[in-house]
Amino acid sequence: MLALQEKSSERRKSGLFVVEGRRELEHCINAGYEVECVFALADSHVPANLPVQTVSPHVYERIAYRGSTEGVIAVVRVKSHTLEDLSIKTPLFVVVESVEKPGNLGAILRSADAAAATAVIVCDPLTDLYNPNLIRASIGACFTVPIVTCSTEECIAFLKAHDIHILTAQLQDSQPYYDTPMTGPTAIVMGTESTGLTQQWREAADAHIRIPMQGQLDSLNVSVSTAILLFEAVRQRQHIAVG
Amino acid sequence: MLALQEKSSERRKSGLFVVEGRRELEHCINAGYEVECVFALADSHVPANLPVQTVSPHVYERIAYRGSTEGVIAVVRVKSHTLEDLSIKTPLFVVVESVEKPGNLGAILRSADAAAATAVIVCDPLTDLYNPNLIRASIGACFTVPIVTCSTEECIAFLKAHDIHILTAQLQDSQPYYDTPMTGPTAIVMGTESTGLTQQWREAADAHIRIPMQGQLDSLNVSVSTAILLFEAVRQRQHIAVG
Repeated sequence: MLALQEKSSERRKSGLFVVEGRRELEHCINAGYEVECVFALADSHVPANLPVQTVSPHVYERIAYRGSTEGVIAVVRVKSHTLEDLSIKTPLFVVVESVEKPGNLGAILRSADAAAATAVIVCDPLTDLYNPNLIRASIGACFTVPIVTCSTEECIAFLKAHDIHILTAQLQDSQPYYDTPMTGPTAIVMGTESTGLTQQWREAADAHIRIPMQGQLDSLNVSVSTAILLFEAVRQRQHIAVG
Repeated sequence: MLALQEKSSERRKSGLFVVEGRRELEHCINAGYEVECVFALADSHVPANLPVQTVSPHVYERIAYRGSTEGVIAVVRVKSHTLEDLSIKTPLFVVVESVEKPGNLGAILRSADAAAATAVIVCDPLTDLYNPNLIRASIGACFTVPIVTCSTEECIAFLKAHDIHILTAQLQDSQPYYDTPMTGPTAIVMGTESTGLTQQWREAADAHIRIPMQGQLDSLNVSVSTAILLFEAVRQRQHIAVG
């Protein structure tokens, strides 16, 4: 159990991962994941029809990864995510080249849910989508927002083939994001926090966009930047819909 | 040293707090704070003219609060912040009613720096502005953005006296934020993550605004919400300046 939470190699090998918390588990079930087993404290509420194993507080404490959860821990089977799974009727994609911190990717997913992004595409096939810190930071958005992992080449080919505008977030050689149309099929591409975007993406871009930094630090958290850009798309689309 | 980092009562009593990391210390010095003493590893770079005490890695490890810093820890004198300190030439205030997590307030400060907000006002005189998690999450924005603590009554009186429009972020009884003018003197008021805004602020508001939630989770991190609202003000002001 602990190995499943701490090691991505264990998750890959077994095809299982761990979900803690009632709310997170609900989102997970609603998204169609298959629950193998639930460990729960006697007084905790577990959704019906699940294979529940009641455990003592002592045992629970030993298997829980997070400090405070609601007495519910589930072992869940992973699902595969590919570009072909994506509905592309109202495409607003977030593409991340690779993300160092699982917490950042979780926060990006939370913002992507709020903006009803079509999917988050992670261009790093080795990303572990079932890291407990990712699940936690996303407060369940990892189950409500489709996530795809693929290579950069596959992603660019997919976007070009579907005529989806590629907007890369970069400070140099770019225009303010709010002067950039996002009402058509759009993919917003974010670099890593430490090294920024690769040349491959800069060249594939239809436009380079930036959030104009007005302060002294020249830095926004990648999940905050993503949210600002996504909600500009929401704003523009809303205004077209209304007027 | 550890007491200064772990206990806000110690910070209040001594009038001192601790800053870890080279970048953070630089922002702190640039903001005019008085550095009492710097503890540094032999090979770390410390800004000139500071009273430095070189320490061994063993000692450093014992006094450091964060896991990895750049071998620089400073003891710094607190400064008082009042509403009277505020320049109000180009007012764009962020008001937080009270913030449970120091990390959230730090992240709000980081976004406030990026949007060049005039100041962040925390309506809870007991807020400890020198919590190490706050300093860390702000990556130094706690020194570049003026922070004021005061009571809700004082804050409302100040905003009304200076004809600053009060926009409260709330889901009920509100209009989309992007349909709300923010080009005049503006204060954006955020409730707490868990309980939302108090009635006092709802009644004091000139407008109630919301970020339209398009997803399934109905929830954005408070620092992300703040950034989206602040950058809408940046966008609107930019468009007025240009056109």
